[in-house]
Amino acid sequence: MPTTGTGDETALPLSDITVVDLTQVIAGPFASMQLGDLGATVIKLEAVGRGDRSRSLQPSPAYFDSINRNKRSVAVDLKSEEGQEVAQTLLADADVFIESTKPGRAESYGLGYETVSALNPELVYCSISGFGRDSPYEEMPAWDMLVQGMSGIMSITGTEDGPPLWSGLPVGDLIAGSYAVQSVLAALYARENGEIDGEWVEVPMFDAAISWLTARAGHSFGTDEPFPRLGTRHPSIAPFGVFECADDSIVVPAGTDSLWNGFCRALEAPELLADERFETLDDRVANREALLAEVEPIFDSRPAAEWLERLRDEGVPAGPINDTRSVWDDEHVEHRQLRQSMPRENRQDAEVVDSPVHFSELTTTLEVPPQRLGGSTDDVLSEYGYDDDEIERLRNDDIVE
Amino acid sequence: MPTTGTGDETALPLSDITVVDLTQVIAGPFASMQLGDLGATVIKLEAVGRGDRSRSLQPSPAYFDSINRNKRSVAVDLKSEEGQEVAQTLLADADVFIESTKPGRAESYGLGYETVSALNPELVYCSISGFGRDSPYEEMPAWDMLVQGMSGIMSITGTEDGPPLWSGLPVGDLIAGSYAVQSVLAALYARENGEIDGEWVEVPMFDAAISWLTARAGHSFGTDEPFPRLGTRHPSIAPFGVFECADDSIVVPAGTDSLWNGFCRALEAPELLADERFETLDDRVANREALLAEVEPIFDSRPAAEWLERLRDEGVPAGPINDTRSVWDDEHVEHRQLRQSMPRENRQDAEVVDSPVHFSELTTTLEVPPQRLGGSTDDVLSEYGYDDDEIERLRNDDIVE
Repeated sequence: MPTTGTGDETALPLSDITVVDLTQVIAGPFASMQLGDLGATVIKLEAVGRGDRSRSLQPSPAYFDSINRNKRSVAVDLKSEEGQEVAQTLLADADVFIESTKPGRAESYGLGYETVSALNPELVYCSISGFGRDSPYEEMPAWDMLVQGMSGIMSITGTEDGPPLWSGLPVGDLIAGSYAVQSVLAALYARENGEIDGEWVEVPMFDAAISWLTARAGHSFGTDEPFPRLGTRHPSIAPFGVFECADDSIVVPAGTDSLWNGFCRALEAPELLADERFETLDDRVANREALLAEVEPIFDSRPAAEWLERLRDEGVPAGPINDTRSVWDDEHVEHRQLRQSMPRENRQDAEVVDSPVHFSELTTTLEVPPQRLGGSTDDVLSEYGYDDDEIERLRNDDIVE
Repeated sequence: MPTTGTGDETALPLSDITVVDLTQVIAGPFASMQLGDLGATVIKLEAVGRGDRSRSLQPSPAYFDSINRNKRSVAVDLKSEEGQEVAQTLLADADVFIESTKPGRAESYGLGYETVSALNPELVYCSISGFGRDSPYEEMPAWDMLVQGMSGIMSITGTEDGPPLWSGLPVGDLIAGSYAVQSVLAALYARENGEIDGEWVEVPMFDAAISWLTARAGHSFGTDEPFPRLGTRHPSIAPFGVFECADDSIVVPAGTDSLWNGFCRALEAPELLADERFETLDDRVANREALLAEVEPIFDSRPAAEWLERLRDEGVPAGPINDTRSVWDDEHVEHRQLRQSMPRENRQDAEVVDSPVHFSELTTTLEVPPQRLGGSTDDVLSEYGYDDDEIERLRNDDIVE
């Protein structure tokens, strides 16, 4: 099986790419982290004295660490002219700029698209915004939960008799970050094969979230009805969902006839298999309540672990409902080493979740642990031609940190 | 602003790429659709007589249509030797193969990695699976809802006093599809710049979902506690969330001091701004219940539309809770034309959601409307060297449809 983090840098897909990153909190940092996982050198620009707003979000620094490995932190005051010159120096030599500043902010820093593409016509400039330019909401800052509400995502999360709820994942942010990666990679490919020189791409969080409605949108296009909130009930499959065992709940999606067979065998309930009320999938959905009345007491008679084993032995998918702590003890998660510790000098190790992508010839990497604010300021400035005296002076003038 | 679908094919990032797609339902089709949006020619292989399982999911064909534009449908019986030869002929000339078959299934079709890469060493072969090879769950079929349960996503969705719920979006599927696009693009880039010949990449749904826990995982890494289910409550910000107006609910994320100022102005409640219980963000969180007791009656006194206007006028982000039908009437969504109709010959238009990515030099496209099963069988076979008689014979033998 392909592995990650072998350290063979020649096999990193983006080993020749440098990304300058002016984003914070979740959407942008999630994107630049993934470009870093793919081998890009990511230079994260942060405000002097404060840094990425998520550095102070609790628990600190675990919140920040979870989406900021594989980045070199450079703290620079972009309100100052000299700070802007630092950023422009980096951008003149970069392949990608990814930014999520408020409308007009990048321009006020001397980092607007026109300015920067004049310095570096081959740059891929990616703007993550709430609603994008040319929107009635252009000036409105987007928050994940606002996007979840406005996009329809909240409306389909929750129970039928309860109010709309937020998805537990900050999907408004993460979807946008994911499209930012997609669009940057597509532009780098097009640049590499000569189709374009440089590119400016915009990823609005709102539009991104809406595009994920997919089949939920299809439901409304086809029926002219809103997609309902279903809690843990499947509209057209039974038995399917959460079952309470003697000690804990499990998820069992027995979505086909052959799985229904295995389900009945696992429950040692051949009478259900013979019951004409449950013969076809449509029958089982039509008689869902009767079906549940039969199986619920059976599940209640044994502990979850035993049901998982019995169901899986019969080829029926079944799993526990893990929480964000118990998931790391899952057998597969441990075997795949999805949770990784990245050692840091004079600091606690950073705990991170590895990339889920398993290449064969290529690899992903976990190279640079999440850094303190300005952890690479000196190194980066020195690599870009600033001598020690200049760096010292910029630091004394609070231009960099 | 950049536009989509201009029809200038030279500006499509993947205009030189051909993808053979052997996936169904959501995860894989979502991935191949996005590669098609970026300009790739996607040939979708489907079972004779049945096709993608989602063709029969209700509402039909709206469900299928929502994730299958920009693909040419070729119906072929992969259990037959001649059908396998058709697939191999296409793959010998393709850039990308994306498949989400059960473990061992592709091999039994003569489409395993070893076989196909021998035919075409430059192929990017992408396998979307539930748990991947070398997993204790390797044999277990994955379903979106199983992945949501096992990954921790369910555990953080719902209310504090209610059970874990599914996220309304099929995130288990969509996240995997999204990583499939990312890994294919990264491999195409590496192939284009000479770093690799071909590639085999594996995207397990379970691992993909876990990687999206990001800051939710960070919470558990930092506190050794599970991230809670919060319904629509923010753990460390107030006022923030859902407010019930006279006629409807809205979302208001007033997450900073300056937004708190605007919030009080919009509510015409200067007394709140002066109230020492609500002075700092920490104060407002500590006295959340008292704060809500003050503002709830105020929201209840006017309709949602009026509050949205007042809040936005004061620079406070605020939005309605749209459902999957009302979202298409949103001013921004209409202006951006995110919902598009794709005309089809002798059939109802297909309704689709456009790509959210806005390029400047490049473009995305909506070119091929979702097709009937086998809608491009003849054309594709003919382009790949099959003559009319052969196609006729294959059809008579139920090898193709």
